[in-house]
Amino acid sequence: MTTERPILYSYFRSSCSWRVRIVLAHKKIDYDYKAIHLVRDGGEQHKDEFRALNPLEQVPAFQLGDKVLTQSVAIMEFLEEMYPQHALLPKDPWKRAKVREIVEMICSGTQPIQNLSVMNMARDDPPERVRWSNYRITRGLAGVEVILEQTAGKYCLDDHVTLADCCLIPQIYNANRFSVDMEAFPIINRVARHLEALPAFKAAHPSAQPDCPTDP
Amino acid sequence: MTTERPILYSYFRSSCSWRVRIVLAHKKIDYDYKAIHLVRDGGEQHKDEFRALNPLEQVPAFQLGDKVLTQSVAIMEFLEEMYPQHALLPKDPWKRAKVREIVEMICSGTQPIQNLSVMNMARDDPPERVRWSNYRITRGLAGVEVILEQTAGKYCLDDHVTLADCCLIPQIYNANRFSVDMEAFPIINRVARHLEALPAFKAAHPSAQPDCPTDP
Repeated sequence: MTTERPILYSYFRSSCSWRVRIVLAHKKIDYDYKAIHLVRDGGEQHKDEFRALNPLEQVPAFQLGDKVLTQSVAIMEFLEEMYPQHALLPKDPWKRAKVREIVEMICSGTQPIQNLSVMNMARDDPPERVRWSNYRITRGLAGVEVILEQTAGKYCLDDHVTLADCCLIPQIYNANRFSVDMEAFPIINRVARHLEALPAFKAAHPSAQPDCPTDP
Repeated sequence: MTTERPILYSYFRSSCSWRVRIVLAHKKIDYDYKAIHLVRDGGEQHKDEFRALNPLEQVPAFQLGDKVLTQSVAIMEFLEEMYPQHALLPKDPWKRAKVREIVEMICSGTQPIQNLSVMNMARDDPPERVRWSNYRITRGLAGVEVILEQTAGKYCLDDHVTLADCCLIPQIYNANRFSVDMEAFPIINRVARHLEALPAFKAAHPSAQPDCPTDP
């Protein structure tokens, strides 16, 4: 366990930042929240001050002393190694693998191809954009549902909160934004209901972040 | 270390299968190679026999006894834990995190948004499809180049082969397929030259797979 106080550069609605916030809250890690508004003034992530810190011009970025780490799964795995309390990976190697399989289905197989920059391919046609995101998320969650048939208990893997759960909840939020028919995914829904009741998941929700607008 | 003989379901040209093949070769793990042709007859991954094994209808799929694992990074992390010889993650937690950061930049940030199903969005316009893949790969590799400025030695991280290297080489192959200007990435090029000379990287190359057509 390190003694430095970490900083998370985050945007309240960024699903990748949200994953990391859940891990930080679940492990009860104290950190400073620095909001980077991804839209205002052309995007604060492109300003010189933030670029000096993270030349990739993305959130989340995780800072510990003078070191900066980007990419949500890399940050989550780092937190799991450095702050072992309230473990988010099981000890059994096969179960760890199944957790990472679900993580990757969401973080590589679903979210990147439904997000803003890919949607912008069809930017002149907003209904087409929504249809695309809806289709990709539906396909991604259908795959997750298949895996959860083998793995889920109360949560994605048995009855312990894991990194898979930290990725699932923000993806469901995106699914709802794009009107995905969630009735098709009964296991995901059951797991989500359990997760949403947990204090860490409440604390990490976009609506609980300091940069969430009070007037919607 | 397990005693069961693993099976890799692979397609010679699949960059996600290729990543796993490099790990298997680097760790000198004996395994059976089962080819799944992703194009022939509408795609062998959709046939009943393979679907019974992997309902996600994707390669790579890694089988150990009666257990099946999908998703390339999850498989690579599992191999690293189960077959610790010729380690592909450093011991230092920060360095491990930097390796995973590069892995994610390629496997979540680049490959999924340049691949076939996303390209099919613009399927009526092949030149637009190539431009899109070229743009996404160029952007992705530009980010990797920035990180490598801090991390690279002979390989992506210092002078030891890591999971990052196993992901980089297949991505460069995709870059060349889509005519990305690789001159812009001197560190990536230098690292690639070193990697391509290694026996494991030669053994895992698409051209060395049993399902690679002899007549190109």
